[in-house]
Amino acid sequence: MLIATPQSMHFAAALPLQSGALLRDYSLSYETYGTLNADKSNAVLICHALNASHHVAGVYAGQDKSEGWWNNMIGPGKSLDTNKFFVIGVNNLGSCFGSTGPMHLNPDTGRVYGADFPVVTVEDWVNAQARLLDALGIQTLAAVMGGSLGGMQALSWTLQYPNRVRHAVVVASAPNLTAENIAFNEVARRAIVTDPDFHGGHFYQHGTVPKRGLRIARMIGHITYLSDDVMNEKFGRQLRDAVLAQAGEPAAYKFSTQDVEFQIESYLRYQGDKFAEYFDANTYLLITRALDYFDPARAYGGNLSQALERASCKFLLVSFTTDWRFAPKRSREIVKALLDNKRDVSYAEINAPHGHDAFLLDDPRYMSVVRSYFDSVEVTS
Amino acid sequence: MLIATPQSMHFAAALPLQSGALLRDYSLSYETYGTLNADKSNAVLICHALNASHHVAGVYAGQDKSEGWWNNMIGPGKSLDTNKFFVIGVNNLGSCFGSTGPMHLNPDTGRVYGADFPVVTVEDWVNAQARLLDALGIQTLAAVMGGSLGGMQALSWTLQYPNRVRHAVVVASAPNLTAENIAFNEVARRAIVTDPDFHGGHFYQHGTVPKRGLRIARMIGHITYLSDDVMNEKFGRQLRDAVLAQAGEPAAYKFSTQDVEFQIESYLRYQGDKFAEYFDANTYLLITRALDYFDPARAYGGNLSQALERASCKFLLVSFTTDWRFAPKRSREIVKALLDNKRDVSYAEINAPHGHDAFLLDDPRYMSVVRSYFDSVEVTS
Repeated sequence: MLIATPQSMHFAAALPLQSGALLRDYSLSYETYGTLNADKSNAVLICHALNASHHVAGVYAGQDKSEGWWNNMIGPGKSLDTNKFFVIGVNNLGSCFGSTGPMHLNPDTGRVYGADFPVVTVEDWVNAQARLLDALGIQTLAAVMGGSLGGMQALSWTLQYPNRVRHAVVVASAPNLTAENIAFNEVARRAIVTDPDFHGGHFYQHGTVPKRGLRIARMIGHITYLSDDVMNEKFGRQLRDAVLAQAGEPAAYKFSTQDVEFQIESYLRYQGDKFAEYFDANTYLLITRALDYFDPARAYGGNLSQALERASCKFLLVSFTTDWRFAPKRSREIVKALLDNKRDVSYAEINAPHGHDAFLLDDPRYMSVVRSYFDSVEVTS
Repeated sequence: MLIATPQSMHFAAALPLQSGALLRDYSLSYETYGTLNADKSNAVLICHALNASHHVAGVYAGQDKSEGWWNNMIGPGKSLDTNKFFVIGVNNLGSCFGSTGPMHLNPDTGRVYGADFPVVTVEDWVNAQARLLDALGIQTLAAVMGGSLGGMQALSWTLQYPNRVRHAVVVASAPNLTAENIAFNEVARRAIVTDPDFHGGHFYQHGTVPKRGLRIARMIGHITYLSDDVMNEKFGRQLRDAVLAQAGEPAAYKFSTQDVEFQIESYLRYQGDKFAEYFDANTYLLITRALDYFDPARAYGGNLSQALERASCKFLLVSFTTDWRFAPKRSREIVKALLDNKRDVSYAEINAPHGHDAFLLDDPRYMSVVRSYFDSVEVTS
């Protein structure tokens, strides 16, 4: 098993952000897997989605269950083979897993940032990632890869640094969020912001955590990451075992409005509780806003084909049939815009039941498509 | 314009509920439109969905904008013609619009029910409605009609009182909720129950209202009542006018995680705020639980065809193509189960863009299908 070692790099030069603000200095947490070759032509950058981190692959020494979030995809002999590639996982600015974020000290005030952490965008993250590559001495990426919000970063790389990336692998992503997606993000944010323990985002000083809001946010997220079908298959209308033990099938419900009765309720509450224990509320707001804002076609009056003209690398796009949050038609929009520009594009629409979550799961066709693509990526050995 | 007059009827006999509890005595608010004919063969009962009431059609005297929630459907010369039919709208038990509910006094304790109001089911509502018909001297309904949760009541009428209903019109409904639907209900309930102002459902005594929770609940509801397409068409990624005025198109976003920037956010917050002003939190819990519980096939091991064998009336079912909360395939399950029993069924799948909300909107094909159906319902003149 691949052993991962988290690292951190400090950047003393201020980072100008899209909002106009400056991040005076900052650190990025990252991990690398495999070996950078002599001419540095085998580097692959992995961009993470909402609640993930730089811990992409492998496990931490002595912690068998600490697999990275894309460990099924990345490692020796895997679809993205670390025997061939030097893979970099990086934690984004504003996150709560090591890189500079809302729970760190604001050097300007000496107090925790909290809600004062500047709004960061996909473009800002990509700029910060580029500085990390500079520091690692990597001029050009063999590939940049990400799923969901990570796919937006991969796409943005091809527009912000077209000469620094040879391939982009964009999985279960979209050229921007639909109104419905923004709406789900907004409800989650409202749940957090209106939690009395949020204190305008400065809850750290009050010794509180807006766990109620975080739980609701996560529950909403979970519903939208799964497909209706897979939810029915996993949970259906099954009652909790405890309810059944008490009432006895086929007897009645408990007839309660506040207790858990259905298994799906139990699952969602568990997921919500778990998330509220480790995730930062300000990070949740920042990351969902980055999702809302991403829209490379905006500066081109909504014309995605014009927006993607700058991209010069080769592309693999992957979508999943039951993903209703980042539906296949959104990936097809990107494919079409790239083809309008006569770019080299591969596209796979994977027939998978798991909804948006499928991009993290172990589907053999999906894994094999990615494997084939990376087999074709040339590196000097 | 039809002038509506709300009425109330008190029932002194206790109502046994599905949970085993008894509702000692209770009142039902209702309205009627049109005239009951001599042999009482022209009565149509309308069952309401989540946040509606007995005020189905017409306006209140002197209040021009007080149209009933199905006023586009019901009235003189309309699809359900009150010149031909005697139409009854009834408010369900547990509601917050007049019928006995959580904010009323519990005669056993002399205190407001609050969270102690017994859990009521679709079947309980139908039993209470049947008693209202008894009191009005109506043995047999020409038709029972409802949309969404109201459609579940209409369907349940045909099973609980097969000899008292000649026609059932079931619109945008389902034979039970999917796991996804239960999940959305559960998130909404958690938002309410975990609001510190909820006080375990006894907030009336504390002089508070769990508005934060109600707002979140309503926002979630609104997202799921609309289709992705109609949201994109109505709101898309448009920024709020105030943001545009400040920043100037095509300039940047405000870069804020807590302010409203997109129009869809503004719309949702407005809907949430409005709802929290008038809707009761305990009613929300009760009504969503009634939705979760409804499942006539449950007692038949999930076999809907067996469950519907008792139904002997004629049926019209209507669904809407973009309704993802009560999708056409759920209506088709009912149609199939009825056809398995050789029942007389008409079914219309209306190509409408508005999602679940379509059942309340003014689609000409929809209105015309319902009109034709009611034209065929025989009454002695």
